[in-house]
Order: sequence, then C-alpha cells, then structure tokens
Amino acid sequence: MTYQPPVRDHVFILKDVLDIEKYSNLPGFSDAPWEVIEQILDQGAKFTSEVLAPLNGVGDKVGCKWSPDFTVATPPGFKGAYKTMVENGWLGLSSDPKYGGQGLPRILSLSYSEMSTAANMAFSMYPGLTHGAAEAIHAGASDELKDLYLPKMVPGEWGGTMNLTEPQCGTDLGLLRTKAVPNGDGSYKITGQKIWISGGEHDLTDNIVHLVLARIEGAPEGVKGISLFIVPKFLPDADGNPGERNNLQCVGLEEKMGIHGNATCVMQYEDAKGWLIGEPNSGLKIMFVMMNEARVGVGLQGLGQADAAYQAAAQFAKERLQMRSLTGVKNPDGPADPIIVHPDVRRMLLDTKAFVEGARCFLFWTALRGDLSRLEPDDAEREKAGDYMALLTPVVKGFLTDKGFKACVDAMQVHGGSGFTEHFPVSQYLRDARITMIYEGTNGIQALDLIGRKLPAKNGRGIMTFLSELESFANENDGEGELKPFVDALRTSKDQLQDAAMWLMQNGLQNPDHAAAASVDFMHLFGYSALAYMWALMAKVSIARIAEGETDPLYQNKLITGRYYIERLLPDAASHLAKLKTGADTMMSMPVDAF
Amino acid sequence: MTYQPPVRDHVFILKDVLDIEKYSNLPGFSDAPWEVIEQILDQGAKFTSEVLAPLNGVGDKVGCKWSPDFTVATPPGFKGAYKTMVENGWLGLSSDPKYGGQGLPRILSLSYSEMSTAANMAFSMYPGLTHGAAEAIHAGASDELKDLYLPKMVPGEWGGTMNLTEPQCGTDLGLLRTKAVPNGDGSYKITGQKIWISGGEHDLTDNIVHLVLARIEGAPEGVKGISLFIVPKFLPDADGNPGERNNLQCVGLEEKMGIHGNATCVMQYEDAKGWLIGEPNSGLKIMFVMMNEARVGVGLQGLGQADAAYQAAAQFAKERLQMRSLTGVKNPDGPADPIIVHPDVRRMLLDTKAFVEGARCFLFWTALRGDLSRLEPDDAEREKAGDYMALLTPVVKGFLTDKGFKACVDAMQVHGGSGFTEHFPVSQYLRDARITMIYEGTNGIQALDLIGRKLPAKNGRGIMTFLSELESFANENDGEGELKPFVDALRTSKDQLQDAAMWLMQNGLQNPDHAAAASVDFMHLFGYSALAYMWALMAKVSIARIAEGETDPLYQNKLITGRYYIERLLPDAASHLAKLKTGADTMMSMPVDAF
Repeated sequence: MTYQPPVRDHVFILKDVLDIEKYSNLPGFSDAPWEVIEQILDQGAKFTSEVLAPLNGVGDKVGCKWSPDFTVATPPGFKGAYKTMVENGWLGLSSDPKYGGQGLPRILSLSYSEMSTAANMAFSMYPGLTHGAAEAIHAGASDELKDLYLPKMVPGEWGGTMNLTEPQCGTDLGLLRTKAVPNGDGSYKITGQKIWISGGEHDLTDNIVHLVLARIEGAPEGVKGISLFIVPKFLPDADGNPGERNNLQCVGLEEKMGIHGNATCVMQYEDAKGWLIGEPNSGLKIMFVMMNEARVGVGLQGLGQADAAYQAAAQFAKERLQMRSLTGVKNPDGPADPIIVHPDVRRMLLDTKAFVEGARCFLFWTALRGDLSRLEPDDAEREKAGDYMALLTPVVKGFLTDKGFKACVDAMQVHGGSGFTEHFPVSQYLRDARITMIYEGTNGIQALDLIGRKLPAKNGRGIMTFLSELESFANENDGEGELKPFVDALRTSKDQLQDAAMWLMQNGLQNPDHAAAASVDFMHLFGYSALAYMWALMAKVSIARIAEGETDPLYQNKLITGRYYIERLLPDAASHLAKLKTGADTMMSMPVDAF
Repeated sequence: MTYQPPVRDHVFILKDVLDIEKYSNLPGFSDAPWEVIEQILDQGAKFTSEVLAPLNGVGDKVGCKWSPDFTVATPPGFKGAYKTMVENGWLGLSSDPKYGGQGLPRILSLSYSEMSTAANMAFSMYPGLTHGAAEAIHAGASDELKDLYLPKMVPGEWGGTMNLTEPQCGTDLGLLRTKAVPNGDGSYKITGQKIWISGGEHDLTDNIVHLVLARIEGAPEGVKGISLFIVPKFLPDADGNPGERNNLQCVGLEEKMGIHGNATCVMQYEDAKGWLIGEPNSGLKIMFVMMNEARVGVGLQGLGQADAAYQAAAQFAKERLQMRSLTGVKNPDGPADPIIVHPDVRRMLLDTKAFVEGARCFLFWTALRGDLSRLEPDDAEREKAGDYMALLTPVVKGFLTDKGFKACVDAMQVHGGSGFTEHFPVSQYLRDARITMIYEGTNGIQALDLIGRKLPAKNGRGIMTFLSELESFANENDGEGELKPFVDALRTSKDQLQDAAMWLMQNGLQNPDHAAAASVDFMHLFGYSALAYMWALMAKVSIARIAEGETDPLYQNKLITGRYYIERLLPDAASHLAKLKTGADTMMSMPVDAF
C-alpha cells in the first residue's frame, strides 16, 4: 500500500472544525460549495495516490540527469505525470482567473498540495515553485509582463524558479553579486552564478521563467540595492511562444541527500536578457511576498512527509510479527503478535499521529487566516487575519518541518533494520524531509523572523490577540466534562507562551543576543501552544458531534489522540520555556577557538 | 580539515577525571603506565586521522560491490588501510595475550575505537565485528576451537561476523529457522538464510569466521532451542590455514541509507560445516555476552559520529561569513561575520559539545566499571562494578545513539543548504549514524532491557547504589562556590531518576504495559542524570586544577560547557519524567485500525 491521502481528516478540519461553508459569502469561497470541495479532495486524492505516489521511489533512485549539452532529464514518468497534472488544472486552483486560474481560496489548493507533496515531494516542487514565481510576478510586475508570462505559468505550461542563492550568500542576500546592466530598451543584461536553483532546468515544460535577484550597476550595497528580474530560458516571441534562446545555462546539478527527483541546479547567466519586476532596488520586498507563501508550503512539506512516513510505519507495525504482547497473546494463530501491540511502538506512532493531526489543523487554520486577510470585508477582522498570518507563518514553517523530520526518524525506528534499507520507503521520506528544515530560510531564520519582526510588529498586536483568543476559549469552555483536560492544557500553554513572550520583551531589548538565543525554543513553544489550541478546538467539536449521535469512530479517536498530545507531546513546552529563559550569557562566553 | 581525534579530551578524562593511574596495581593496567597510554592515544590519532578518515567519503560514494561470483569488493583504499591496521596491532589491544592480544584494559581499546569509528564508521565495523566474534569464541568455545581460530582472529588476520537475523526474525530470535544437523563427527550441517550480516563477505581477509545462530534438529521451539556455531568461509586445514571452501555464500548486498562502505550481506548456508560453541541450546546466552560489549561499541559509534559531525559544523561556522552579529560587527575586515557569532548557531554547536563531552566521560566511566568488574580483587567493589556495567550498558547504547544522531542533524543545520549536499561530509555522518539507533537491539529494546532486566536485577541493587552514589557526591560537595550549580543540578537529577524508578516499580508490576510505555523516556531520563553526574565530576576536577594554577583553557571551558549542559540540555529530563508518568492507558486505548 502506498500513501493514502487523508481525505477524511481534511473533511473533518474543513467542515467540522473550520466550518468553511460559513464563508460562502466571500469571493472565491462562493465558487466552492461543499460539492466542489469534495470533488477537489476526491479527485486530488485519486491523482496524487495513483499517479504521483508510484513515481516517488523511482524519482529517488534514478534522480535527475544532467548532460553536457546543459539539458536535464527528469526521472522516468515525471514528464507524463506533469502533463496530466497540467491538463487536469491542478496548478491554478487558487490563482487569478484573469490569467487562467480558478480563483478558489488558497486553503483548498493547500488541501491538494498536502496530498501532492506527501505523495511525491520532489515532483511537487516543480509546480510549487512555478506557482510561487507566478505569484511574485502577479504581485509585482507590470501588466505587460503579467500578460506575457502568467497565462503560460498559471496553468503550468511554463515552469518557474526563484534564483536567490550565490556561493557566497544564502541567508545574507546583501552579499549578492549577480549584476544587471540596462540595455536601454527597458531590458537588462544579467550576469552571475546562482546555486541551489530548484527546477532550474528540466524537460517538463517548453520554457522556464527564472526570477533572479541581481544588483543594477551603481545600486547601493547590501540588501537595499537588490532588484528582481524575469529572465526566461526562451524569450517569448510576438505570439507569446518560446522564441530566441536566452544566454543562461544549467552548468551542473548538486548531489544531495534527498529530493533526487528534483533538479537542484547551478545556473550561469552571461548577459542574459531580463526584465525588471517592480521598482529598482525593491527586489527583496517582492521576493518576500512570495517567500511568505512559500514558507507555508514548506511547512506543508514537513507535514506531508510526516504523514506519508507515519502511514508506512503504521502499516509495517500492523503486519510485522515479532514477540508477544506483555499482557498476553493477541494473535494466537500467528507465530508472534504484530508489533503494534507493543507500547513503545504505539508511542512512536502516536507521537506522529498527534503531531500530524494537530499540525494539519494548525496549517489549515492559518491558511484560512491568509484567505481572510485578503477577502474579509470587515476591516478589523481582515487585519486580525493578516496579523495572524504574518505571525504564524514562521511557526508553521519551523515547527512543522522540525517535527515533520522527527516523525520520519521515528517512522524509520518503527521499521527497525528494514527502515534503514532502501527497500522500504521510509529512508526516502527521512532524506527528503531533511531539506525542509533548511530551505526557504533555515528554521533558525524563521525563529529570528518570529521574534525580531513578527512578535514586535504593531506593538505586539498579533501575539496579544492570539493570547486573548486562547484565554477566551479556555474561559468560555470551563467545566468538568471531557473537554476539561484540553482546556486545562490550553490554559497552561497560553501562560507559558505569554511568559516566554514577556521574557523576550524584557530581555531581548536589553541584549539582542538573549532574544536570538531564545528564538528557536520560543518558536517551538509557540508551536506546542498553537497545537494545544487546535486540539482543544478539535476535541470540542468531536464531543459535540458524539453528543449529536455521530457514530463515526473518527470523533472518539480524535479525543484519544488529543489526550495523547497533552500527555506525551505538550510536556516539551515547559522544557523549551526553561531553556529559553537561561539567555545567551553562557553560550556567548565560550571562546571561539574552544569550539 | 578532516576529523581530528580528541586526544586532549581523552587525556582529561583518563587522567583528571578517572585518575586511571590509581589502578596500576591491577592486571592489564599494570602494563599501561601513562607513557604507554599517551603512545596509544597519539599513534591511534595519527592512524585514524591520516589513514581512515580520508577513506570515509570514498567508502560512502563508491560503497561495496557484489559480483555474481559471490565476491564483494570493498571501496578503494580499504584493503590497504586494513592491512596497515592489522600490522600495527590495533585489533588486539585488549584481547587475551594467549592468543596474540596485548591484554590492556578495555577502556584503552575504547579510546582507540572512538577515534576509529569517528574517522570511518563503515570501515571500523569490520574489525569491530571481528573483535566481537573473537570475544564470543573466547567466552564460550572449547580450547580446541579457540586455539584454531583466535590466533588468526585476534590480530584481524581473519574476519568475524555475527549471524542472528533472518527475514522473519530480528528482535524476536525465538522465531529463527536456520537448522543444524549433526554430522556425527562433532560437526554440524548448517542450512538457512541470514540477512543484514555486516562484513559477511569482503576482500579484506583470507578467511571470514561466521558465528551463526541455528536450531539443532529436535531442539525446543523458541529461544530455548537456539545454539551458536562457528561456520568458517574456508575450513582451516591441518596447519590452521584456510583450506576447503565451505558451502556458504553472500547472495546479495542490502542497499542502505548509510554505512555504504560496510558490506551488509544476505548469507545463504547450504549444509555448511559448522562447530558448536558451548552447550547445545545455549547460543543466546553466549551471543548476549558479546552483544553487551557490542552495545557499548554502538554507543561509541553514536558518540563518534556526533563528534565528527560537530567538528565539521564548528569549522564551517568559523569560516562561513553571513550577516553581522546582533551586538555589533565582529569581523570588520570581512564582508560579514563568521556565523559562529550568532547565538542560535552557538546553541546548536553547544548542544552537541555539551552532549559529546558528557557522553564521552559517561562511556569511559562505564567502560572502566567493565574493566573493574573483571579485575578488581575486592569482591564488593568488583560486584558493584559489574552491577553498574550491566545497568548502564543499555543507557550508553540508547541514549548516546539517539543523541548522537540528533547531533548530526544539528550539524547539518549549522551548514545550512551546504549540509544537504554531498560535497560536505555531514550528510554521510547523519546517514551513517542513523543505523546506530537500530542495530544491536533497537533503542526501544535497550529501554526494555533496562527496565525489564537491569533495573530489577538483584532487587534493584544497581540502581540503588547508583542513586546513593549521586546523593553522596552531592552531599559531600555542598557549598556556595563554582561547583554549586553542578551539585544542585545533580541533586535534582537524582530525585527525578529516583522518582521515575519508583513510579516504574509501583506501576510496572501492576501492568507491564505501563513500564513498557515509560521505557524509552526512562532511558533518556537516566542518560540525562548520568551526564549530570559526569559534568559534576568534570567540574569538580576542573575547579581543582584551576585552583592549583593550571592555565590550560580547557578547564575553564569545561565549566562553561558544563553550565550550558545544565541550562540547555538538562531541562529535557523533567519532560521525560512528566511523559513517562502518564502511563500506557491512552496509547493502548487507540483501536488498531485507527492507526
């Protein structure tokens, strides 16, 4: 059995928890009545499990092949799957209808994207980056450029990439050297080398549109002198079709630990023709618009790999017979019991199940804020949604990928020695998931973004609103029933998060090293608190459904998984709080040469 | 810069912390005055860093190659390095001089082994398994078999393997099917398939001696009917040289995530000639003698990979220039500061440094108990050392490999995107380290061994003695000086460990699932407590040396690293305690089909 898309859980979140139908008065949502949503989920599940998932292993084992003529061949089967995906219209679900998109809420395209990235992460990066590049063009480029590129990129007929990194600069884009010289006709000559360009060259599309960060001659040094350019592989001709070949090449591929099915390219630009997106020297601003969306997408990758690895481990644990249960034989007809009878195997599986289901709810809840931040007619509600989206994005990226990777590590452990062999899929999940903690800004950078930009933004309005929301929920749901452990845990979580935020405000101002030293622990503490809230929301609605007479075991199982979250995952929050409060003094006192 | 063996830290542990010279009245120790120890450390460092470390990458990239004639070629360079290693006598350091060993204490051979496994884990498994197999023969075989095999195996002229696993049984050896039929001349015909046999076939030695678990015809079912056999690739001739080829073959290699330089073989035995070691049906007992030693060796692998990965990350962090320090420019002549100025980079490095130095001390402290359990003339002291060695072995294996792997994950994170590429060594460290959590008994099995066998052994004498030792140290070192935070932390740690042990005794008897559900958290809590003790020992001696006028900065740096351990690592102990006390009820209440 390969990966099975979690359609039932998506329905639970969209319908029971988020009650998505109540937004049907908003644009986009109005085009997606429940029948349409169900169709997207079912068809998405079918395509990703039947077409993409079977290609995941071959993508890993065969990988991408670079040839001396600067072409790159994707793994067998990718080309056909890509074509089918474009034909089925999976790329433009939430894009602007003006350019061929379907204009649906982003939360729905994320629903598809989770299945896609879980089924085949390396493959799904090609459309993912194309979508991101199209969004950046949509956000910043002139109508002329939009009209030229978006009708090809939105459906995925052409590919797209993001070119940021150079050998001397990754996180620190202020150091970038790629240069842009005006041609005098509105276009520029782009020259430089970019590395780690996902999908920089491949055989899936007729054209590839590179978004390239470069420095216009004479621009200021550092991050203030960086501009963003469209640099297509083939210059569009008068009819908008691929014309003259531009002077850029993929001069090699990186050998990597994972995502072998995605071409990670070294790109060489030599007086390549490019067009400015937006104003000169405002490249980073536009790129960050796109990166914020991309970061949610990377969080989704962490979640997706965790779920796929979990499914493989759960299946293995039900089938593998070793030892007898400590409380008596459970499988008398077999030579041993399935290992799922053993508490420690259940511990590893439930650690992931409780994470995945909580994280999925958190990601969808956050994505809904993203949609509302664009679509809500009420100013205050729209701004609040925008605050949340900004605040929670680094948490979604950092927490979900750190824990998503851990889930893959645990899934391998459930497999025992089998997991370490490449006959089982879990090694690939682990190796693929590892990059999610690094790219689109390492998780350390996410944590700095969280404490340095997002937390203090608008005098801390976002975090304060979030804390009040948690407190209100706890106060409104006090009582002695089945919800009590969830409410109690939420109250503790809220206090811990508030305590940490206060500590940061008091100590981070005094010495920024204290804030930076606390940042990753704070991000994790935030993640635990957010999931405590999600589990409280999920528990409340599950209790209500059961009370209404619902017999689907999903609702009882949610309560078990949620209690497990509180008992077995949430205790780490206190540990993060204790660590972060120790500040930076000890770590900064170590002499450099003692490392 | 490749891996640099931590000779200075070994000297600190052996001389300052363990005061190894005080055991010079004991056999073995008397042959190793300090000059000899220094020579072992220096020569070991030279050989492992100059010969083994440079072959680590090629071992990963080229791997082992199986041919249809059933031969296996090891990676380029391995053969020459193996020959040098044998000629230099590195294999028999702690083996019986009667068979060509040097009879030194095992703690000294571990000192070499740490360097060897950190420099090249895949390579070092060949001599490691040979040593283990020789120890099993030494422990259980007849003098005739010993005389025939050990003079060849002890120096490494012949290789050795352990054949336990079969496709249907890994952890659950009771299910094994390989059969042994008496030939009537004292030998047996061995038939069956064994998988995951490290070093089952290779080109490093003239002969390979397989130790094979099999069931003698008519033996009882389950673990009570398993015997251990010597099954050599070539039957020794009258002169003890490789003679007739035995009927066993390596029919294929496993594709694995890491340790590509070590041949992981599928072995087929067809009426292969074998000789019983020890009594019939006592195979597991002898194998476990060897496995207990091997488990310490696997803990050492976790530690070694952590240190090697840490060194690579620290070097990268000192050289890579990105961003400026938050507290002002530190490298005004460069375009940016080295990333080691950033608190979060230091956090990742110090998480590992504090683990590695504490874990190394713990492993050596434990290994010394192992030596004393054989050599101490005083009965009570010898038994106490034996109790400790038994109790702590699963903690050494499970805690050091779980945390060792985490260290490799963190080292990759320090590298950013570079770490995910195979141009840097850290991907290999991560991939190689991952198996240490699985083999020689998964870490879940270690935890069950700890709570099920080791904790209750002799009415809990081992754990009670250990807890008293921690308490005594705390009481004897009370005060207000620099040692105070270490003593305070130790007291808390001891209370937590005691609390957890009490909980286990009370709840595990009532329901074994509670104990099993708590087992891995207990093992980690134990690890944290043990390292808290080690850091207290190291801090005490460092304070004393500084007071004596020692100016080596190592002593001050130990105090910083130790405080970091207390502030930033030890808080996880409370989290493990909170988790384990929640018991098994929630996890066992989840229906199987809900996973």
